[in-house]
Amino acid sequence: MSQYEDLQAGPIFPRGDKVGENFLGDAYLEMLYVDEKPLNGAIGNVTFAPGARNNWHVHDVGQILLVTGGEGWYQEWEQPARHLQKGDVVTIPADVKHWHGATKEAWFVHLAISPGGTTWLEEVAEADYLAL
Amino acid sequence: MSQYEDLQAGPIFPRGDKVGENFLGDAYLEMLYVDEKPLNGAIGNVTFAPGARNNWHVHDVGQILLVTGGEGWYQEWEQPARHLQKGDVVTIPADVKHWHGATKEAWFVHLAISPGGTTWLEEVAEADYLAL
Repeated sequence: MSQYEDLQAGPIFPRGDKVGENFLGDAYLEMLYVDEKPLNGAIGNVTFAPGARNNWHVHDVGQILLVTGGEGWYQEWEQPARHLQKGDVVTIPADVKHWHGATKEAWFVHLAISPGGTTWLEEVAEADYLAL
Repeated sequence: MSQYEDLQAGPIFPRGDKVGENFLGDAYLEMLYVDEKPLNGAIGNVTFAPGARNNWHVHDVGQILLVTGGEGWYQEWEQPARHLQKGDVVTIPADVKHWHGATKEAWFVHLAISPGGTTWLEEVAEADYLAL
């Protein structure tokens, strides 16, 4: 079984380019899938350096996150933050204000499957992030 | 960067249960996402032991494969087989007869995003597989 245990070592999908807007800290995006068919959504590989996170935002259809490595947070507005690690799956409903990103100490990588558009809002307050 | 390089070591998603039908060899399936919304498809984590592969089959809407580890093959009917490895993405169109699976020597793991149903067909001929 050692080959099975080792087969996913190292980064899986390309890290892509640094994201310039709507994120704090160093985050990277590689689009893996953007065709119109057969899926009704795009697939991106999102990599957050320690401390990086996106701003509060809302998806008009929703989004699925598949966590492939590291440690991070997912938080909906006025809800406690959920700690995320490799293997976690997050279903983000339509019209729910939320953010996601790395913990202060760890890199964080997830796939994001997005069937619709995104409305970007304000930054996550530094004090709230540091208190996690 | 060493933490980034190491953060996806080891299996990522649960291996799940052994698949009993429509596969040759030892293959495993863990469903990661089966909700109706927001995605119009289910997401499964499929793990093939060396030599394992599924039978020829057709998706009525299509399927996306995201390869997370190991080495495998994707082949459409009467086309040459495509070698797959970590980071590869395969868009399988609707109504195209095909199979996928591990190489003879390596484990193979992919996510499969399936917006529709599947029609299962005959086994991949042993001689054709061994000739790859």
